[in-house]
Amino acid sequence: MHKKIADEDLLGEKFLSNISVDIVIFGFHNRQLKILLLRFKNTSLYALPGGFINEEEEDIEEAVERVLTERTGIKDIYLEQFGVFGSKKRAFGATHKHIHESAGKTTELNPWITQRFVTVGYYALVNLKETVPNPDDVSDFCGWIDINEIPTLAFDHKSIIEKALESLRMMLDLKLAVFNLMPESFTMNDLQSLYETILGKKLQRTNFQRKMLSLGILERLDKHWTGGAHKAAYLYRFDKNKYNEMQKEEMNTNKF
Amino acid sequence: MHKKIADEDLLGEKFLSNISVDIVIFGFHNRQLKILLLRFKNTSLYALPGGFINEEEEDIEEAVERVLTERTGIKDIYLEQFGVFGSKKRAFGATHKHIHESAGKTTELNPWITQRFVTVGYYALVNLKETVPNPDDVSDFCGWIDINEIPTLAFDHKSIIEKALESLRMMLDLKLAVFNLMPESFTMNDLQSLYETILGKKLQRTNFQRKMLSLGILERLDKHWTGGAHKAAYLYRFDKNKYNEMQKEEMNTNKF
Repeated sequence: MHKKIADEDLLGEKFLSNISVDIVIFGFHNRQLKILLLRFKNTSLYALPGGFINEEEEDIEEAVERVLTERTGIKDIYLEQFGVFGSKKRAFGATHKHIHESAGKTTELNPWITQRFVTVGYYALVNLKETVPNPDDVSDFCGWIDINEIPTLAFDHKSIIEKALESLRMMLDLKLAVFNLMPESFTMNDLQSLYETILGKKLQRTNFQRKMLSLGILERLDKHWTGGAHKAAYLYRFDKNKYNEMQKEEMNTNKF
Repeated sequence: MHKKIADEDLLGEKFLSNISVDIVIFGFHNRQLKILLLRFKNTSLYALPGGFINEEEEDIEEAVERVLTERTGIKDIYLEQFGVFGSKKRAFGATHKHIHESAGKTTELNPWITQRFVTVGYYALVNLKETVPNPDDVSDFCGWIDINEIPTLAFDHKSIIEKALESLRMMLDLKLAVFNLMPESFTMNDLQSLYETILGKKLQRTNFQRKMLSLGILERLDKHWTGGAHKAAYLYRFDKNKYNEMQKEEMNTNKF
């Protein structure tokens, strides 16, 4: 929340009270799972991208999509709503005041920002290489940080990230949406790395390969020669049409 | 939302703006899956139980628990947050006005009720027989209605119920929480009826029985003689300790 928006903007525009959105944007690169974070100006405090909902113009999802595009430059991103954070202890007035004052602003003109917010958590799965991270006017850094190296976060953003990861892990068994994190073509090892990073454990190679191929959504391309000591590995491409068919079926099937 | 609360209450207490909670309370009885609904006074409009969040005193879950207890008389209920409904078309001022006027009240003293609300959907799983449904002061009926006989609903409550059912179906594979819908002891047929009702389809009897017994959380009791033409069937009891152990394990395992 509060990131794109300067005090001036808030005075001009009318947002819903007491409700914000925060977005855990996952990207995968060099076999690392990363999250997009902002750092507030002149502080060592990091935070998730987030924002508010325009009272007259935006559905909640439209607000989330706007924030995503503002921070990453990309559109049409895979999104899941994974939790609502509504503790009464989320009374963040003092932190908001500190952040604004560090950025050379004041909350006096806009006490609205210091009220209690219930925030709705979304996660997004993006191809990291397509993004151009863009800080807002109370932050001086916006970039990708490895999930194993998350710095000190403002507010309750640490527990929001933990919940997002938990939901992502649960989703691995239910949906194939994690393919949104992969580039156009990839090796089976690349894909296994992604699953291992999300699950936080090593997987058995032949089992993983068998399971993935059995889904029937991977198209095998040519072999890829890395030039290293390893054998050339097959590249795979994700078959979006088959994937869409399967998603439809998944909605209607159940393991009984 | 807006159910327990009279205009007078709203004037006295301070609730968060723009955010409400709505609860799909599932109960199971006579092999039927039911939902608790209210009917607004002097109308044929039904709605889900719901309410608002006390600004100073309540976490969002505490508000949900309060509403649940007010409408059912019971506490410590299994709850899941399943979705957020934040369309800008949820501008329900006119409907709220109609409901209040039908109940002999006015919204003029309290225009707060006619603002835009983003609502957070929870579902609850209860043992229907333990509840004592209790209408609020704008409704003249509060009771259990079969999910196949849902009447005309106010607001977007129909789509909230559909989403809740969809989440409940997904949960069948992930968690064993549906046992909260069963009485202390039950036959395998009773349990199968519950699953069939939630899934909306018939299941194969021997497969179902094998899967259920393999979970290791059912304790077999004596046979139960119904007095009918059928054979006596075993009664089962749900082993809560084993269930709790499994839930912990489930959090840490994954199907790879």
